This record gives sequence, structure tokens and C-alpha cells, in this order.
Amino acid sequence: MYVHVVKQNKDGIVVRGAKVNQTGVINSHEVIVMPTAAMGPEEKDYALSFAMPTSSQGIIYVMGRQSNDTRVIEGDIDQGNACYGIVGGEAMIIFNDLFVPWERVFLCGEYEFTGDIVNRFASLHRQRYGACKAGVSDVLIGATATLADYHGISKSSAIRDKLSEMVHLTETMYGCSLASALSAYQSLSGVYYVDSLRSAVTKQNVSRFTYELFRIAHDVAGGFIATMPSELDFKGATTGQYIEKYYRAVETVPTEHRLRLGRLIENMTSVSAAVEATHGAGSPQAQRMTILRQAELDKKKNLALKLAGIKEVNQ
Amino acid sequence: MYVHVVKQNKDGIVVRGAKVNQTGVINSHEVIVMPTAAMGPEEKDYALSFAMPTSSQGIIYVMGRQSNDTRVIEGDIDQGNACYGIVGGEAMIIFNDLFVPWERVFLCGEYEFTGDIVNRFASLHRQRYGACKAGVSDVLIGATATLADYHGISKSSAIRDKLSEMVHLTETMYGCSLASALSAYQSLSGVYYVDSLRSAVTKQNVSRFTYELFRIAHDVAGGFIATMPSELDFKGATTGQYIEKYYRAVETVPTEHRLRLGRLIENMTSVSAAVEATHGAGSPQAQRMTILRQAELDKKKNLALKLAGIKEVNQ
Amino acid sequence: MYVHVVKQNKDGIVVRGAKVNQTGVINSHEVIVMPTAAMGPEEKDYALSFAMPTSSQGIIYVMGRQSNDTRVIEGDIDQGNACYGIVGGEAMIIFNDLFVPWERVFLCGEYEFTGDIVNRFASLHRQRYGACKAGVSDVLIGATATLADYHGISKSSAIRDKLSEMVHLTETMYGCSLASALSAYQSLSGVYYVDSLRSAVTKQNVSRFTYELFRIAHDVAGGFIATMPSELDFKGATTGQYIEKYYRAVETVPTEHRLRLGRLIENMTSVSAAVEATHGAGSPQAQRMTILRQAELDKKKNLALKLAGIKEVNQ
Amino acid sequence: MYVHVVKQNKDGIVVRGAKVNQTGVINSHEVIVMPTAAMGPEEKDYALSFAMPTSSQGIIYVMGRQSNDTRVIEGDIDQGNACYGIVGGEAMIIFNDLFVPWERVFLCGEYEFTGDIVNRFASLHRQRYGACKAGVSDVLIGATATLADYHGISKSSAIRDKLSEMVHLTETMYGCSLASALSAYQSLSGVYYVDSLRSAVTKQNVSRFTYELFRIAHDVAGGFIATMPSELDFKGATTGQYIEKYYRAVETVPTEHRLRLGRLIENMTSVSAAVEATHGAGSPQAQRMTILRQAELDKKKNLALKLAGIKEVNQ
Repeated sequence: MYVHVVKQNKDGIVVRGAKVNQTGVINSHEVIVMPTAAMGPEEKDYALSFAMPTSSQGIIYVMGRQSNDTRVIEGDIDQGNACYGIVGGEAMIIFNDLFVPWERVFLCGEYEFTGDIVNRFASLHRQRYGACKAGVSDVLIGATATLADYHGISKSSAIRDKLSEMVHLTETMYGCSLASALSAYQSLSGVYYVDSLRSAVTKQNVSRFTYELFRIAHDVAGGFIATMPSELDFKGATTGQYIEKYYRAVETVPTEHRLRLGRLIENMTSVSAAVEATHGAGSPQAQRMTILRQAELDKKKNLALKLAGIKEVNQ
Repeated sequence: MYVHVVKQNKDGIVVRGAKVNQTGVINSHEVIVMPTAAMGPEEKDYALSFAMPTSSQGIIYVMGRQSNDTRVIEGDIDQGNACYGIVGGEAMIIFNDLFVPWERVFLCGEYEFTGDIVNRFASLHRQRYGACKAGVSDVLIGATATLADYHGISKSSAIRDKLSEMVHLTETMYGCSLASALSAYQSLSGVYYVDSLRSAVTKQNVSRFTYELFRIAHDVAGGFIATMPSELDFKGATTGQYIEKYYRAVETVPTEHRLRLGRLIENMTSVSAAVEATHGAGSPQAQRMTILRQAELDKKKNLALKLAGIKEVNQ
Repeated sequence: MYVHVVKQNKDGIVVRGAKVNQTGVINSHEVIVMPTAAMGPEEKDYALSFAMPTSSQGIIYVMGRQSNDTRVIEGDIDQGNACYGIVGGEAMIIFNDLFVPWERVFLCGEYEFTGDIVNRFASLHRQRYGACKAGVSDVLIGATATLADYHGISKSSAIRDKLSEMVHLTETMYGCSLASALSAYQSLSGVYYVDSLRSAVTKQNVSRFTYELFRIAHDVAGGFIATMPSELDFKGATTGQYIEKYYRAVETVPTEHRLRLGRLIENMTSVSAAVEATHGAGSPQAQRMTILRQAELDKKKNLALKLAGIKEVNQ
Repeated sequence: MYVHVVKQNKDGIVVRGAKVNQTGVINSHEVIVMPTAAMGPEEKDYALSFAMPTSSQGIIYVMGRQSNDTRVIEGDIDQGNACYGIVGGEAMIIFNDLFVPWERVFLCGEYEFTGDIVNRFASLHRQRYGACKAGVSDVLIGATATLADYHGISKSSAIRDKLSEMVHLTETMYGCSLASALSAYQSLSGVYYVDSLRSAVTKQNVSRFTYELFRIAHDVAGGFIATMPSELDFKGATTGQYIEKYYRAVETVPTEHRLRLGRLIENMTSVSAAVEATHGAGSPQAQRMTILRQAELDKKKNLALKLAGIKEVNQ
């Protein structure tokens, strides 16, 4: 089932198998395939990496569903993100005997490099998560703070405390990401690699804080984000007049603004967003194992033994 | 904008205004209207409670949207809850000069009872949340545990620990609810009222634990719940064969079962579900104020003064 | 090393071994010995339960240390709990060939009952933890709230929010304990047994919330609880005048009151208190295993399968 | 009560007042005094900064108490930190008309700089907390991991998970500290200043994670750290033999090692340590206000408005 080589000749290789999911592939010019785990000699055929144009013959895409994905065809309010829609371009990719010429093959059978390639990719990906999700979270904080303004509660100390917490969590994600990047080391090739312990720590915080951020956003924004009428009802002559009147919070703010921000928060806190923050760049469990593996426990044990006045030392 | 009396005669009253949201009203035979805050003499016209058939002339409903609500018309897999669909029947209710005969009016101008009526309703509602959401959570635990079986990971101690945590959180919600109910007192009318401090504690736990439960469910269930293809693709001849093949986890479990459980979890952890758990029966802030108000701080202060050997006592 | 029978005749048994710790044994009239785990036939000699006066020949006690235990001999302020001192009476008990007459033996070799006896004792003990620690926590809340008064900050919404959180956590512990007790079942002997799932949930909450309660108490009470001068300095002529002057917070409150409450909080949040809340009645891990064992996962799985429209059912 | 100038002439100034606490002053060569808040013109006399040798005439120190401080005179096991003892050198400092020559005065009346001086010191101090406490935490992790070895449980996945969590929390503190330092800017004087938003985030994480780290350390280390007999009993002829025998965990590890590590953890998780982590470099509330003040909410609001398709923009 995994992507593997089924044939090879002097011009290139033929690959078969599937990737059950690749984020954003539909929006991309090229699809890059890599191993997802360290491999041994018996998995030689699966030690494979290459890049091909997404439009190549021999690749089939089955689009994944996202929360509320059909709303993009209903208008621009209910999709939440009015500018860029909902579409993440997640897809299942089937390589149906795809031919890949040699100049596009990076790895083919050299299983001894699979561990390294996976670790490096994962570390970079995890580090970037802290920056990406901090940026996303900035928007969520902005939407939440604006709704607090619209509801006339932004001076309440309880609200201010919740916004402060959102910023704190966001900056913790970003700080760890920055620390990982700024303590990068230069490899022999000249390329810089981030600190992989700090990358895993970054990603683990992302996978936790996301739910806490969503919780606070829902708390401050109010229950209406789960019960608002639809865009079509808002634009309907009869229903629209009632919604305009009864959904207005502050006199100076049009009801439509309130609905738009509510929908933006709904969109940004969807199951799709939550699950992606949980499993992207490796599951929480993968982070925990990476963290422990790099924890240098023996060094820490020796510190404790010394302070406790115990002579014996771990090697 | 709030529901109020605009006219009254010997037969009954005429009411106007809106409730921006009432859960489940579309599925109900009667709509019951109550005040949502304690009121003073100047709010006499808003001190109003009555019940009317939902189909009465003079009531307009604007259905609220729910996460993925249009999926009910696409089939039964993608809606997640295959038996009962997604429809919560949340709606905005506009009372457009509704006539209510006196025999259906419970409160009309007696503002001095509004505080009591709100507190009693809120306490009962909050207590029930702990039982309702524990039941919902039992289903979520079951779905998560079954997917762990399908993925062949249910013997892993990390997975077992996560399931144990889900049960712990669920039973904490239920335990507090039970404690509130079991320490109910009988009012003069014969009706039992739950303990309102414990009700608020119950609801506050619900509003927090919900997000933690969702987080663990997503963690164990896996990333596929955010990237699965649609039901229509699964049933499509070409795409279906690939999904059948590549989405299968354990040989003995049909791919469809896996998809169905993934969709059930997606459905149960949606924004609609999360926000309802946050704001139903009062916002988290309302719970905190209720808790502090009933905390009997002076009694606690005296305990501390006594143990610390300080004579002065709070009255 | 464990307590076991080394000899028996028609009058009684002779026991040897140690209990490395028993809470409060020094203050008690009788010591009751029980197994701490379910046992098999090969552990027959260890399947032992009896009660003896604490002053019996053949029992040696080695008192355990507690945080700041020597302060009891320095005066009554620095020990914190001025009325009852610090002494918990924790001790290691060595049974040095203690003779126990048959009428004081409850179990001697009947290993098949060890599981039951352990579970029943643990369940009762865990349930009571929720009541005990809620009472202790009430005192801590009272001390914290009084210091907030002394510092003139008790009207601040941030402080009120922290007190509300302390009450919430405390009532959650108590609520679960109450639920466990109120859903007790009557055994054939007439004795009531608490619900053991709810007992384990109670104890798990105690082991978590304790640290959170300590954190909030320290936060509100202020840094002085870790830096206050000693009672002897406070009573010293030269140093005392400075402490009286510079440690005063509010004009109307004597400095001594502030010191006394600070010391009470220090005492109540010590390592001894924290560790006892963690490990008493079984470690956190023991609670998690108990919770999962009683979770009825198959029942929950069936609920999920039904809602997802899957026919197959777990038995 | 605060430190202020009472007299000044051409040679220097005379200062009076107290600092109720300064960490480590007893161990230091010089005492440096600074304002602790931004001041206005009416507080001119309090806008004061200077450095003097700690042994100067006119300074009185009253040593603060620490948890278990008297154990340093009992031997080296029970004090926990066998190498460096317990003594933190916390003291109350009374300036009893101390004369300070002009060359040792940094600020005297220039109230307009007090805000800056406080912010810069606080930011640097908060950033360093993340490094200091991560180092301390490394020792705690080492002690905990070694006890897990001694208890023969270090291969258990539950234990490994808890150690992983300790490392995760520690590296999050350190990562934020590093990010604050690495995004420092150079001031006109050439001195580098850390990023103050990230410093506050660092310190807030320290004040939270400390309690969680203590909780896990206690959980893994076991209940014996709260019930161990004293060093004197361990060294006593009669009691010592029993302790040696019954406190041994693994055959190859001397009982004394176990006791030493237990005492080290007890020492490192004391109330003194916890409160210092909470209130050092400003209370948790101070961090929250700093975080919100620097959050650039308007910028975040504009991001949200743009994505939601709302034209209006915050300035």
C-alpha cells in the first residue's frame, strides 16, 4: 500500500502506492514524495523520494473533506475566511504506475538515509508549526478582540485576562519555534538545520494550546457563533430584516460585521483546524518520544547525584 | 429587542421581541419563554413567562446553522451521527405580536420573582449538563476506543492512558452532577431543587473538559478524521476502489466502518458541540460568579483565623 | 521484608516485617495491618490482617520527618498551624516478632480475600480523600482570602477570579466524593460500600488539584510567605520593631496576624502535604488503572457503533 | 516605609527605609537598590538607586526563613542539597540612615527614568528565569529519573511519559528564554536588551510549570519523600539497621543513596522554591499585564477584519 518502486530501467522508475493525505497538494505545482519512517534493507523498495509535477499522468487525487467545505459555493460570509475560502487542498494521492525520470529521483533504495531524511524533514516541519500557528492564532486573537469590542465588553478585566492568555499561549508557541531556529547548526552542505529537541517541544505545545485557544475564543466570542442563521437567511428579504435588527450588538457596528467575524472564528476553530494542529508533522506521541530520546537523561542524573552528595556516576 | 408585553386585555397578552437562540425549539411541541436575568420595577414589561405551541401564528423561526449541516442531504456516512443526523433544531425566534391567553401566562409584570426563576432554571439546567455531556462523552469514548481497536493500537499503554483520562474527565462531570442532584432540597411546593453551587461547578467543568476530551479523541483517532474523502467519493466506482484499499486499517474491519466512526467523531467534536458546551446554561463567567457568590468566604476565613491562632473573627 | 507470619500455635501468631509508613499511627490507640495487594497461594504467609494496641511489645516505631518539623519547639507562629502543630505522626513500623492472639487476627493465609479487602479499603479511603482535602482546602481558601483582605486587594477582579477557581476545584473534589458516597450499595453484611470508580476519580482529582490550589494560594498570598523572618526575630527587641513596622500591610491589621496567616499557608502547602495528597490511598497511576478497569468500554463502544450506523456489536 | 532620601549634601545622601526582601543579599559583596515601580514628581524622594558594600554601617539585615532551614545544622543528608546547603541568603534590609557617597548614587530624584529602569531590569530578570529554572529543573529531572532507576520502574511507559513531560515543560521555559535573548536589540549605549514581551511569557511559564514539575517529581519519586526517617535515625545504631533493611529498594543501591535523592527532591520542591518561582521578577499578574500591553491588539484586529472581508480598519 505504501509508495514503492515496481520497475526501473535506464530512463527512470515506475512507482505505485498511495499517500492517504497530503496537505495542500491540490494547490501546488509539484508533489514531493518522501519516506515517513526509518527503513531497513528489507524495505529497500519503499526507500523512495522524488518530485513530479502535480499534473503528471499516473497520479490520481481524491480530495479530502474539510469542515463546512460546501459553504464556499453559498457565498462569502458563511465560509468564514472571505478572502481565501475554506479550501485547504488536502488530498489522497494514488500513484498508479507513475513514471519518474531519474533526474527527478532523490532516493531509490538507499534505505540507510531514510532515518536522517525523515528526522530532518520532521524537525523543520515542527519548528515551522510554531510560527505558522502563531500567525494563525494572531488572527484568531484579533477576531476575538474585535467581537469583544462589538459586544461592548472589551474593558472587562475578565475579558482582558482571557485575551492576555491567548497572547501568552501564542507567544509561547512562537518563542519555542524561534529558539529552535535561532539555535540551528550549519551542516556540511551549508544548509542550516534547526534544533530538533526544540522543534518537537514547539509542536507539542501547538498540539495542546490549539484547543485552549479555541476554548477561550469561543468563550469570549459568545454562543452566537454556533447558532447564527445562514448567509442566505441574512440576505433574504423577510428573515434578513429580523436578523439585522435582533443580531445587532452595538449600534455603530453593522450586523453583517458581527456575523462575518463569528463565521471567521467558526472557520478557524473547526475540526479540520484542530486535527491538523494535532497530527501535522507527527502525532503528539511522536513528539514525546523525540523529546525523551534527546533529553540527555544521564547528564541530568549526574547533576542530581553530585548535588545529593552521591559519588557513583552514570556513564 | 427583548421579549416584552405590548398589550393586554381580559383574554390575554400580546408579546413582541426575539430570542436569538433556543436549542431544539424546532423539534419541540411547545416553546416556553422565561426571563434571562433578574429584573427591577422599570423592566416590568419584560418580566414575562409563558408557554405556547411552537406552531402558533405570530411566531417566526429562523433556523441556525450547525457545523456541516448540509451533509444530511448527502447520505448517512458524512453526517456522522447516522441515526439522528446533525440537526439540533437551534433557531432564532421572533415573536411578532403573538397573542398568549392568560391560562398560558406564568409571569407578567411580577419582576420580583425574576431572580428566583432564573436561578432555579439555571441551576437545574447546569446540573443536567453534567449528566447530558457525560452521556455524550461516553459515546465519544466508545468511538475513540473502537478506532484504537481498528488501528491495532488499543493495547498500547499510551492509548490506554488517554482513554483512562477521557473516562476520568467524563466521570468528574457526571459525579458533580450527581452530587448536585443528590443534595437537592425539597421546596415548600414539594418540588426538589438541586444544589446550585454544585450545579455551577458541574457546568464549569463541562465547559473546560469538553475541549480536553475533543483533544484526546482527535489524538487517538488519528489525522484521517480531518482528511477523509467524501461519502460520494467512497461510493464512486473509480475513487471508491482506491479508498476501500488504501483507507483500510485492519484486514478484518471494512473501510466503511472506519470512515463511519471517523465521521462520528468529527460530528461530535464540531464547533457547534464545543460552543454549546461552553455557553449553554450560562457562560463560564456566569459560573464563576455564581461559585464565588455561594462560597461562604467568611466561614472559611474564620477557620483559617482559628487555626493560625488569631482571635479576631469575621461576622 | 513485608509483614508475614513466622510461627503460629493454638493461641495466636507471630509476625515479622515492616510497614515503611503509616499515617498517624503515633497518635492512635491501635495499629491495624492489612495486605496492600491481591495475593496468590504462594504468598499465603503474607495474606495477613490483624489489629494490636500501638503500645504492644514487639513493635518498633521510627518517626518520619515532616516539612519544618522542628519548628514546633520554637514557638507557635512559625509552625503555622498554631492549634494543632505540624505533627502528623507518620512512622515506619517494624514488627519484631510481635505475638498476635487469634481473637485479634482477621486474615491469616486466606489469600483469596486479599483482592477484595484491598479494593474495599482503597475505595473507602479514596472517597474520603475528597471530603478531607476539601475541608483542608476550605481553610487554605480562608487563609488566602484573609491575606487578600490584609493586602487590600480583595476587591480586585483578578483576585476574586483566583478565589473562585480555588472554590471551584475544592467543590469538584468534594462533589465527586459525595457522588461516590451517595451511590453506595449495601453489601450482604449490611455495610455500605462506596462506588469505587467514583472514588478513584475523586482521588485522582485530589492528586492534581492540590498543586493547582497551592499555586493559586502562593500567587494571591504573595512572596512574603517564602521570605518572612523567624518568630524569634519577630519577638526580638531590636529586630522585632523593624519587622512590626515594615511587614505591616494594612494599618488596622497587626503584623503578627499577617505573619501567622503566611505561616499557616506555608505549613498547609508543604512538601509533606503535597506528597500525601499525591500518594495517599494509592498513587495516581493506581487511580488510572482502576478507572480504566471499571470504564465498561465495550458498552461505550456499542453506543458509538449504533450511532455511526455500524451493525457489528462488541460482546 | 519605602527607601528614600532624608538628607543630602555635597558628599552624598542619607537614606532610610526598608526592602522587605532581597534574594541572596547575605551572600553578596554589594547591595544594589532600585525603584520597584514607575514614579511621578511627588515621589521624587523615592526615585533612588545606589550600590553599597553589604557590610556598610547603617544597614541591618534580618534573615528570612526557608523551608527546613535548621536542617543544615543536623548533617548533610536531610538538608537535601548536600553540597550547597539550603541557605538562600534571603533577607529583609533596613537602611537606618545609611550614608551613600555621590559616586555610588545612580539615581536621586530623576523620577522620569524610574519606569524605564524598572522595565529593563524586570525584562532581563524574567528572561533569565527561564534559563535558571530550566537548569534547576534539569537537576530535578535527574533526581527523579535516578529514583525511577532505584525503584526499578524506569522502563515503564507511564514513567517514561512523565519524564518526557518534565523535559517538555523544562525546554519550553528554556526555549522562551532563549527566544527572548536571541531577539535582543542593541541600545544606543551598546548594551543589548532582551525582548520584553518574550521575557514576560517566559516568566509566566515558569510560574505555572514549576508546580506541574513538582507534581510529576513527587508522583514518580514516590510517597517515601514525605515519610522518610531523619538522618539521625538513619545513623542511629538500632533504628539505622531497620532503615537500612526496609528502605532498600534495589539490592545494588545503598539505602543512603535513596534517602539522599529523596531529600534532594524534598528540598528542591519546597514552599520556598515554589513561591520564589511564582513571585520572583514580578507576580503572575504583572506578567499578564505586560503581555497584554505589548500584544499589538490593533494589528491583530486588522488581520481578522481583512480575512473576514470587513473594510473598516482600526488605527
